[in-house]
Amino acid sequence: MSNEAHLIETQLSTREIFDGKILHVKLDTVRLPNGATASREIIRHVGAVCIIPLTADGQVLVERQFRYPMNEVITEIPAGKLDSPDEDPLAAARRELREETGVTADKWTCLGPFYPAAAYSDERIWMYLAEQLHFGQQELDEDEFLGVSTVPLQTLVRQVLAGEIPDAKTQTAVLRVWALRQP
Amino acid sequence: MSNEAHLIETQLSTREIFDGKILHVKLDTVRLPNGATASREIIRHVGAVCIIPLTADGQVLVERQFRYPMNEVITEIPAGKLDSPDEDPLAAARRELREETGVTADKWTCLGPFYPAAAYSDERIWMYLAEQLHFGQQELDEDEFLGVSTVPLQTLVRQVLAGEIPDAKTQTAVLRVWALRQP
Repeated sequence: MSNEAHLIETQLSTREIFDGKILHVKLDTVRLPNGATASREIIRHVGAVCIIPLTADGQVLVERQFRYPMNEVITEIPAGKLDSPDEDPLAAARRELREETGVTADKWTCLGPFYPAAAYSDERIWMYLAEQLHFGQQELDEDEFLGVSTVPLQTLVRQVLAGEIPDAKTQTAVLRVWALRQP
Repeated sequence: MSNEAHLIETQLSTREIFDGKILHVKLDTVRLPNGATASREIIRHVGAVCIIPLTADGQVLVERQFRYPMNEVITEIPAGKLDSPDEDPLAAARRELREETGVTADKWTCLGPFYPAAAYSDERIWMYLAEQLHFGQQELDEDEFLGVSTVPLQTLVRQVLAGEIPDAKTQTAVLRVWALRQP
């Protein structure tokens, strides 16, 4: 890209609003490209991973999980937070897949980063395709409740295109894996 | 789906942490399916829209925009917040497209809802495909800085699949429009 200095904002100050277990809320003041100042309400997040676990016969493991902010049970691919900002995303993906579904995988492909809400959050989700699966026992946290099932990738693609899968990372990961397999 | 009452959490209390211009942060206490209690850190958000503006010859209007939380200039499709929770998303999409790019469109197709961060935010983004475009003048807010250009849909698809477009809504909308046009 050409020089984009005319788009850049610079931090003048930062104030901590809330230091939670998941969300770290800051209220920053920035200098805009035109020299004016503005406030920025932002979330600092440790980062996360999500995984498309794909069987040899084209089935995807998905979860049904209650999402309190939406007050809905929704369909999602397995996902979870990093344990720390320094954790290797692939190690986190292996852990989350094993804990949530009991599955381990011999083949992992990174699908790149995903910024769910770049306007107000620094969360990065690393997306993975997991293949050559081995099925074992779930190891859910004691406050984690979810149901796991398998759905053909083609069915998920149809559901995404019909607007029936609202979860962002699931929409994207399903379409990416499908697109990568098109001739 | 079958009865999923065994997944549901119910609100016991809610406390306001921060009432900002964009982010409204709450710390709720919930009853888990097993009867235990847990805290939930959540963002209340007014909702948003995003738009794929597609020309007759297969070009997409995209923006280069600095995203302060990521400290990066990234490529995104046009998007913006609703003016109020009750605003018609299509009206918001027409407004945001006109203000950010100067474009109006005769044909609008809703691509359904998108939950960017259902684990901790109630934000819903309504996705639209805009076609039959007419080009006019940008009307940016005085604190809004972005560059608009056109990119072939096929190029965007390739960039998404290569992991070069980290923005969530842009990844998904590009792949959805592309998938809907496959034979």
